Amino acid sequence: METVIDSLHFVGASRKGTSVDTVTTLLLHIFIMFVAARVAGELCERIGQPVVIGELAAGIVLGPYALGWIGLPSHQMAETLGGAAHAGEALNSVYETLAQLGVIVLLFLVGLETQLSDILRVGPRAGIVAAGGILLSFGLAFAVAVVTGQVAVAATFIATAVVATSIGITARVLTDLGLLDTVEARIILGAAIIDDILTMIALTLVSSLGQSGGLSAGTIVLVIGEAIAFAAIVAFAGRHVARRWGHRLEHLRVQSAPFSVGVAIMLGLAVLSSQIGLAAIIGAFLAGMVFSELREDYDLERQTRPLYDFLVPLFFVITGSHVDWHIFLDGSLIGIALVLTVCAIVGKVVGCGVGAVSLGRRSALIVGVGMVPRGEVSLIVATAGRSLGVIPDAMFSAIVVVIVLTTLVVPPCLTTLFRSQGRSTDSLPSPADLPLLP
Amino acid sequence: METVIDSLHFVGASRKGTSVDTVTTLLLHIFIMFVAARVAGELCERIGQPVVIGELAAGIVLGPYALGWIGLPSHQMAETLGGAAHAGEALNSVYETLAQLGVIVLLFLVGLETQLSDILRVGPRAGIVAAGGILLSFGLAFAVAVVTGQVAVAATFIATAVVATSIGITARVLTDLGLLDTVEARIILGAAIIDDILTMIALTLVSSLGQSGGLSAGTIVLVIGEAIAFAAIVAFAGRHVARRWGHRLEHLRVQSAPFSVGVAIMLGLAVLSSQIGLAAIIGAFLAGMVFSELREDYDLERQTRPLYDFLVPLFFVITGSHVDWHIFLDGSLIGIALVLTVCAIVGKVVGCGVGAVSLGRRSALIVGVGMVPRGEVSLIVATAGRSLGVIPDAMFSAIVVVIVLTTLVVPPCLTTLFRSQGRSTDSLPSPADLPLLP
Repeated sequence: METVIDSLHFVGASRKGTSVDTVTTLLLHIFIMFVAARVAGELCERIGQPVVIGELAAGIVLGPYALGWIGLPSHQMAETLGGAAHAGEALNSVYETLAQLGVIVLLFLVGLETQLSDILRVGPRAGIVAAGGILLSFGLAFAVAVVTGQVAVAATFIATAVVATSIGITARVLTDLGLLDTVEARIILGAAIIDDILTMIALTLVSSLGQSGGLSAGTIVLVIGEAIAFAAIVAFAGRHVARRWGHRLEHLRVQSAPFSVGVAIMLGLAVLSSQIGLAAIIGAFLAGMVFSELREDYDLERQTRPLYDFLVPLFFVITGSHVDWHIFLDGSLIGIALVLTVCAIVGKVVGCGVGAVSLGRRSALIVGVGMVPRGEVSLIVATAGRSLGVIPDAMFSAIVVVIVLTTLVVPPCLTTLFRSQGRSTDSLPSPADLPLLP
Repeated sequence: METVIDSLHFVGASRKGTSVDTVTTLLLHIFIMFVAARVAGELCERIGQPVVIGELAAGIVLGPYALGWIGLPSHQMAETLGGAAHAGEALNSVYETLAQLGVIVLLFLVGLETQLSDILRVGPRAGIVAAGGILLSFGLAFAVAVVTGQVAVAATFIATAVVATSIGITARVLTDLGLLDTVEARIILGAAIIDDILTMIALTLVSSLGQSGGLSAGTIVLVIGEAIAFAAIVAFAGRHVARRWGHRLEHLRVQSAPFSVGVAIMLGLAVLSSQIGLAAIIGAFLAGMVFSELREDYDLERQTRPLYDFLVPLFFVITGSHVDWHIFLDGSLIGIALVLTVCAIVGKVVGCGVGAVSLGRRSALIVGVGMVPRGEVSLIVATAGRSLGVIPDAMFSAIVVVIVLTTLVVPPCLTTLFRSQGRSTDSLPSPADLPLLP
């Protein structure tokens, strides 16, 4: 009784009861994250660093492992995994939903600036790039794990966790630099799709390792066929439909109809793609690519940009808030973690770079570096391995270090590489470019 | 162990464990809500009805009381009010956060099209309109409650619940019709702010009724003073700051800096305003009004529109999903519910209309009808009253009927009133207007 009355007191609190207080708290968190992201971004622009680095740093500083103004520590998040509800679940669901919307909009916008023909032109090379990166990353990580005394099953889990490229960071850097129309960007994007499909195969094999019954070969083929068919059908049939019927969108009467249809298809393909077992962002990218066929009819890029400006910074702040920097203080751990990180970087830089070497060494390096970032898929494989008792805690933490370092290292490296090629854009004037001007 | 392995199987499911499955489910719900909202909106445009009616109807149909494709019934939501976590809390937090963001963006956009000078010009009249509506609504509802046998405390709670105008619906109709620059719209917006402050006073008094200790007069004055000071300082100081320093935003280097600053201030003032005890949307409206001073420098309206197109339909679908239409099947209830609804409508139409009668009878009617919708504040007062055992279940349900009917009745009425004034816009061609054309 007291509680209800208290909720009406609104002296220094909301007038609207506990449940609405949760929403007010979440709005406050969103406000803090958004302001921090934009302030950090502004500082990065002024010192010539990629904006995304500032957003990640803002997330680390505000997150539960430092100031604690936003989020919950991930061991508390892990407790929610079993479906057992607790007070933090609401908070985290909102965070993760906003973050997912952010990265979906990011890849949709990237797709809007990429036509299928661009990707097809680099198709075979993208396939070689993806395969090279996966094979070398897997091999190196497997070798390190075995050398440090892991059994074969553990080594397989660890190597699989190290395999999967997470394209969000690279997509963001390419977008910010305005370099999505370069051949390197197209190879990276094509390879990211193929990488995701190959990772699915690796995941299927690993999961059958841990299973008594095992998966039938038929099921595996079916699942993988589904994913490949999904990507191909969406890309080709989508292009056909867009070209044939796209102009009809202007007959719709509801406000901003073409933009609304774009957003609907972005969300729909993202959901469908994660139902099929691919990353949601692959679906969002494909949706954007379909609508890129209509770029001359409707200015969807301009309309998508405000959603991007609102949601994408939140995604990177939330990503940063998951970083537990205490890991780096653990002397016994940091050696193996750094070795594994080097394997993860070399695996992609060399493994992917080799496939692109005919473009020149610097372009090959750009493609390799662009494929380096690891993300949530790695974390999920590692979490599964630890829950099974297959991956020891130290190796789990080492994989987290791999994710953190590959994420933080790529934006400045990519920016520097493009700049030293003389291809930086207006948005990032670099002192190195100035002598080129008359 | 089985569960973790299962989560890696991704046959017909996501490859990413339970917590990410929640996010995938939420993305699916967002997709369903967005598509339904836009399809319903398109249908409404084609039959000449307000789009918002289609969105509310989509919410009712998809919601937990009909198809059950989205949301949870509100009795389950009520269980989460005590802070006790359960599986639905995550779902509802995401829904309510998105809905709040939607209505915040809606009122921000309305603010962007309203300058302080517009509101000041109608200020005294808006004050009379707000006061008239509150006094008559309170008086009528109190009388009905007493006549139907409620004790004084219960009648006070019921009357307070019936008092508060919820401006979202009206703001949406005015925006869709492109009529925010009419004198009626400005009076309604000014009156909505004053209504919110007056409602706060009523809430303070009611909460002291239910309290043993009682609130000191000093505290009440302090809280109310805070709210009035907040609105005045934001509006006047904000206008000064915007005019004096607004052009400096173009010196910022981060992408879309003016838009980002606008969004940050929108979120910040929304949070602050709900901390002070006012509705979050009042802060968002004030933020928009401050930035309306910069409309010639930056095209914030154009950039805010995509956020509006994405989030506002979700707000109205979610609002619709809360409607439990079974209430209308209860014969013993529906009599008193309809009487209370008539009081709620007459209270605002007459009480507010009288204050605007010097503008002409039709304008006075528009102002009155625009102030009719009731919303979440009514629900919160009613919930508090029921939890205290002061309001009987039948009266609680009657108040829910008031909210539902006032929400559903206003959009078509407002649209018809504006049209019959010959002030409909291109977006809503009405057969009635055609003879006026040459």
